[in-house]
Amino acid sequence: MAKRKGTYTVVFDEPISVRASAAVGSKKESEGPIGHAFDVINEDDYFGEKTWEKAESRMQQTAIQTALDKAKYQPSDIDCVFAGDLMNQCVGSTYGLRSFGIPFVGLFGACSTMAESLMTASVFLDSGAAGRAVACTSSHFCTAERQFRLPLEYGGQRTPTAQWTATAAGAAVLEKGDTPPFIHAATIGTIEDLGITDANNMGAAMAPAAAATIKRFFDDTGTRPNDYDLVITGDLGKVGGTILRDLLRRDGYDLEHCQTDCGLMLYDLEKQDVHAGASGCGCSASVMCGHILPLMHTGQLHDILFIATGALMNTTVVQQGESIASIAHLVYLSSKKKGGLVS
Amino acid sequence: MAKRKGTYTVVFDEPISVRASAAVGSKKESEGPIGHAFDVINEDDYFGEKTWEKAESRMQQTAIQTALDKAKYQPSDIDCVFAGDLMNQCVGSTYGLRSFGIPFVGLFGACSTMAESLMTASVFLDSGAAGRAVACTSSHFCTAERQFRLPLEYGGQRTPTAQWTATAAGAAVLEKGDTPPFIHAATIGTIEDLGITDANNMGAAMAPAAAATIKRFFDDTGTRPNDYDLVITGDLGKVGGTILRDLLRRDGYDLEHCQTDCGLMLYDLEKQDVHAGASGCGCSASVMCGHILPLMHTGQLHDILFIATGALMNTTVVQQGESIASIAHLVYLSSKKKGGLVS
Repeated sequence: MAKRKGTYTVVFDEPISVRASAAVGSKKESEGPIGHAFDVINEDDYFGEKTWEKAESRMQQTAIQTALDKAKYQPSDIDCVFAGDLMNQCVGSTYGLRSFGIPFVGLFGACSTMAESLMTASVFLDSGAAGRAVACTSSHFCTAERQFRLPLEYGGQRTPTAQWTATAAGAAVLEKGDTPPFIHAATIGTIEDLGITDANNMGAAMAPAAAATIKRFFDDTGTRPNDYDLVITGDLGKVGGTILRDLLRRDGYDLEHCQTDCGLMLYDLEKQDVHAGASGCGCSASVMCGHILPLMHTGQLHDILFIATGALMNTTVVQQGESIASIAHLVYLSSKKKGGLVS
Repeated sequence: MAKRKGTYTVVFDEPISVRASAAVGSKKESEGPIGHAFDVINEDDYFGEKTWEKAESRMQQTAIQTALDKAKYQPSDIDCVFAGDLMNQCVGSTYGLRSFGIPFVGLFGACSTMAESLMTASVFLDSGAAGRAVACTSSHFCTAERQFRLPLEYGGQRTPTAQWTATAAGAAVLEKGDTPPFIHAATIGTIEDLGITDANNMGAAMAPAAAATIKRFFDDTGTRPNDYDLVITGDLGKVGGTILRDLLRRDGYDLEHCQTDCGLMLYDLEKQDVHAGASGCGCSASVMCGHILPLMHTGQLHDILFIATGALMNTTVVQQGESIASIAHLVYLSSKKKGGLVS
């Protein structure tokens, strides 16, 4: 069973085990600081397919298959997969998962999807509605540019606050078990909107959502930023990260020495020309599933807050003058099953 | 706690109460056979807003507010809202729910969203991750036409198999409680695709998904179609309904005398020029929340299988030659808390 702690936070009596995880990326991701962490790298952006959209579906399929292989499970061993992505009608997931035949709960959380899927899968496992689950998401630079900004052929100039959508996917296999790390708690985000209208400054739009969710988790649990090895947001980038720390400092929480962001870890910001950092559902998914969760599995990291952030707008409502609504979901993971910081 | 029954079905030890529900529609819906069942009708399609997209968001907001009023709850009494819709990036939900401040789990299931949201909310309530929840979805004829087919100004000819997207929303308030009806069980759908490529024949594309889910529920529970007052699909329309009954007859399940479809109930197919029936997330949402759930509340209907069906494609992948992947989620509701047909 789960219980509510404080107003917003869910704590699992029996923490949920992440049995295995996998990350898939393309050439650019392999050249970044955590390039070694990818299980599968494709040298071009097509992954053997004829279109970018089909390539993104193939990435989700590959990420899940690789995670299942590492867990030594077949698709038929999995009761439910929780997935979504940035493409219209989440077709990265729906077409990527079509061949598995696993019962599917489609999620939409934009770039917050990796945290949303880990959290939702954990609740299904906790209740007994599923015995084993997979959480998965993806993004693709070319599908995102085509859909949200400009056709690549246009060669549009990128602003300094723009982030680079990762061509990457991540998947994790979850169960009630004894393989570290463990999901102990989660804070479900609310929709926040401080009126940012610049679709090239997503970090600023999403920072208030991250600040609200993180503050609520600390308030609800009585823990402090320095209790954790890492408070890892994804994907606020350079601009959003600064705003987040400023907002939380006003609330009495100092993240200066323990916070980082998936959008700052995937690429080398000096050498890879990505401006304010990485973004896209696949950014935090691959950083977590390829890099952070394995470090927790081997005991090199112990207590992590993972807060994935998503911008919830589409191009039509932005053209109609709407500001960018955002959300952030938080998951608390520990390398220990018992004796976590929150109970 | 929930338990798995058979391979695909989830049964709740303590069934989840639907405390209240509400439906919102426009003029066309008010003129149909269940026009009296709508709590709020707007005489035009704009609901006081300047664009159709904002109107759809306003419909979700109104449906939730009305359901909360009927339940005598404030937004702050609700731990989590589960919602999604057909618009790109689910902006009907994200902008419609923005002002409530309720923690939000975004779902994507296309027109299966009402069943998906009832099922997912039930699991969260079952586990204790939420104490009270809202499930909600919407659709709007004009936002759907603009996004999926042709601008309305084009005046395109509709094919005989085409369905009419409902301008409607439905919301339900769920909790562990004693107000009928009760959600006893659910079957999570898998992604099915038999190769239909005609975006004007959604009923045919979705029928195999409905057949697969319904067959699994009967197989898992050992119950039969005639055990239920109604097997209500949404929204297969005239064409898809015939295919569904044919497919299930081959599997040994005869739906001839107990099945109907939300897409056949919302409009008068003779008089309202909707061709093969109604469709859209708001179709099954409003039929269930405005008509069926209230009939169960007052004991006029007892045992219902609700199977909402969704087509999971977008326009880009269809232009790239993909067939239409579909899904159907099933929820078993009873007017009785104890002594349901499945335990």
